[in-house]
Amino acid sequence: MSKINVGIIGFGTVGSGTFEILTKNTKIIRNRVGADIVVKKIADLDIESDRGVKVERDLFTTDAYELINDPEIDIIVELIGGLTKAKEFILSAIKNGKHVITANKALLAEQGREIYEAAEQCGVILGFEASVAGGIPIINALRHGLSANNIQKAMGILNGTSNYILTRMTQEGLPYNKVVQDAVKLGYAEDPPTLDVDGTDAAHKLTILISIMSGEPASFASIYKEGITDLTPDDILFATEFGYRVKMLAIIRNLGNRIEARVHPTMIPKDHILANVNEAYNAIYFEGDFVGPCLFYGLGAGRRPTGSAIVSDIMDIARQIKLGIKGLMPPLAHAGISGSRIEIMPMEKLTCAYYFRFSALDSPGVLSRIAGILGENRISIASVIQKGRKINGSVPIVMLTHKAQESDVQKAIRQLNDLDVLTSNTVLIRVEDRQ
Amino acid sequence: MSKINVGIIGFGTVGSGTFEILTKNTKIIRNRVGADIVVKKIADLDIESDRGVKVERDLFTTDAYELINDPEIDIIVELIGGLTKAKEFILSAIKNGKHVITANKALLAEQGREIYEAAEQCGVILGFEASVAGGIPIINALRHGLSANNIQKAMGILNGTSNYILTRMTQEGLPYNKVVQDAVKLGYAEDPPTLDVDGTDAAHKLTILISIMSGEPASFASIYKEGITDLTPDDILFATEFGYRVKMLAIIRNLGNRIEARVHPTMIPKDHILANVNEAYNAIYFEGDFVGPCLFYGLGAGRRPTGSAIVSDIMDIARQIKLGIKGLMPPLAHAGISGSRIEIMPMEKLTCAYYFRFSALDSPGVLSRIAGILGENRISIASVIQKGRKINGSVPIVMLTHKAQESDVQKAIRQLNDLDVLTSNTVLIRVEDRQ
Repeated sequence: MSKINVGIIGFGTVGSGTFEILTKNTKIIRNRVGADIVVKKIADLDIESDRGVKVERDLFTTDAYELINDPEIDIIVELIGGLTKAKEFILSAIKNGKHVITANKALLAEQGREIYEAAEQCGVILGFEASVAGGIPIINALRHGLSANNIQKAMGILNGTSNYILTRMTQEGLPYNKVVQDAVKLGYAEDPPTLDVDGTDAAHKLTILISIMSGEPASFASIYKEGITDLTPDDILFATEFGYRVKMLAIIRNLGNRIEARVHPTMIPKDHILANVNEAYNAIYFEGDFVGPCLFYGLGAGRRPTGSAIVSDIMDIARQIKLGIKGLMPPLAHAGISGSRIEIMPMEKLTCAYYFRFSALDSPGVLSRIAGILGENRISIASVIQKGRKINGSVPIVMLTHKAQESDVQKAIRQLNDLDVLTSNTVLIRVEDRQ
Repeated sequence: MSKINVGIIGFGTVGSGTFEILTKNTKIIRNRVGADIVVKKIADLDIESDRGVKVERDLFTTDAYELINDPEIDIIVELIGGLTKAKEFILSAIKNGKHVITANKALLAEQGREIYEAAEQCGVILGFEASVAGGIPIINALRHGLSANNIQKAMGILNGTSNYILTRMTQEGLPYNKVVQDAVKLGYAEDPPTLDVDGTDAAHKLTILISIMSGEPASFASIYKEGITDLTPDDILFATEFGYRVKMLAIIRNLGNRIEARVHPTMIPKDHILANVNEAYNAIYFEGDFVGPCLFYGLGAGRRPTGSAIVSDIMDIARQIKLGIKGLMPPLAHAGISGSRIEIMPMEKLTCAYYFRFSALDSPGVLSRIAGILGENRISIASVIQKGRKINGSVPIVMLTHKAQESDVQKAIRQLNDLDVLTSNTVLIRVEDRQ
């Protein structure tokens, strides 16, 4: 039986998970691939710490180039993260004719073009299933199972940490800061969890998804993102009263000549299948022009789920090595070059429904002044909740609008925030209804 | 650009859907595959009816062998269904060295071994993504994305018609017969919908899933199945009171040396993600030893979703034809032969929790006699609902048990049904709790 040699660079959480699967499921993997997958070498700066898996000492090295330059190694798995060393290692491995697997979403989202092109030029396979939604085989679904479709719309819960935080805020009515402290304590979030809660991580993943769908590297910088740090239990409660859940969503809509792409807290109807994706789970909902609505759900992080994605890439590459082919398809799954750049629609052109919460003085005529400014900006009100209960001494006025344009909304909010009857800045949450 | 010729045998619902995708998404498909996919010929006994798509008249023939024997056709798509002609066409196409795609779940489940072996011997690719769960790329997920995992458990809503019926019975409290009449009228169900509602269709699909997971054709005949025709709105209501939903589930549990496999109405906790899969949607929930819990959700039938699966298979095969390879992996996705037959555990060995509804005379001592018989058969009661309200003149006594063995349960039910205080046969629904 043939033997495929793998080198792992970076032996942290995902690296040790990957090693554990290859060790524990050796027989299944051999049966399915028809080859033995062997970890020949592991590079990490720290080769002393115990990662909870048993590894022969002589597998370790501190020098990544020992792997990259080893002619016997077929596949390099890059798991150190970050933008500098990781990129250098990946490009060197590609130049040495090695197939590369990476979970590095930041690198692919921000500097992917160089890596995709290098892999294509050198005729090696680039696997990055683990870079989006951890164990959920979503890249594979786009490259294969859904590939006949023009994806019209996608909405994803792509960051488990922020979903965990929102779930607890929703179910227990706790404020953001309290849940974050807990999440850090329990190991669900880093301290501070900046990239998770500010939308960066989800936007990285969304960039990769758009690139696969369109066959061209998308521009991470063009994707609007907004975090969950300003959400309050009150807003979540009002959303519930309107029949919605608040989720941190990454959203794409295919507009034909351009793509709407954005990451922000979003209200979705509480019986939407995404509304019931809770805790640290991830999910991606698609609408394809033929397949219709579909959803992929699972764990988006963690050593075992992410390791599962890495090993699935190893197995797919091993099958191709066995057949002597140089990749069934290029990294972005488009054999023909479309040639056209993907244009991401500027955020101010967005049209959607909005939730507003105004903090108002309890005095006559306030609602009329708010409604007046909204009306002047072509924003039409769908429903209003006004309750006696005060929040921080002010009366909350909460409303849902009909579809309005983001630029009008931003202008209206600037005008509203200048009103002397409003005591603090207006809270805004975008709403995604069923079409 | 190279050209891949396809022949479609059977131009009904799925055939015309397939043709429509290839026509409408030609550019996307060409970009993604790097080849032109051309439908060279379509065979159907009826070449006159309008299927809602525009087809050049000279593409049609009534003779399937015109396609099977055409040396220019690379891929044969079999969509006529049934066990005899379909099998003959598929085997002939394989012998002629053609790659074959089929949506024929009955054929693969009942006589798959012959077809899998023929494809492997002749070095052709067999695509059957459309045979399970329509547009949901679940076969692909098992062959690729989840392939590093030992699947410990799977639960699937694999039949859209029965899910539609149960959804309406649950949401509207309607009896089975009324909903079925509606479903037939609306075109959601065939008249009569026997194979959909008696579990046969779901068991066919489950057989294929087990075969892919294990690499050996599983025995359809060994899979226990029970339909939804005896379910009443009362049982669904009582299930709700206990915190459950009733779903028609296909269930697999990997027991190491054998597999538990069964299809029957099942109570699952109402906050389980499968409990919220409604209408005609399908979904498959997996627990992998590394990926953990995951779910795939979408439309399991219909011309467009099923066509999407067929075309994804065409595209995958086209990519392989371009590279001159004879298939990345064998039909059942196992390159190494395990050699071991899959043993399906006999149903009487099943251990699970049960729901019972007894129809009892309103007289003293009844509960004690029921409880006595259950106790003698090692069935322990977890909770009981007894209400004054009569159903057909009898008092319903409803209970949930702790885990019990199926053989004990069947024995107890036989004894109970002989009691003179029970006025009709006991209703039984199996319960799947979270582990």
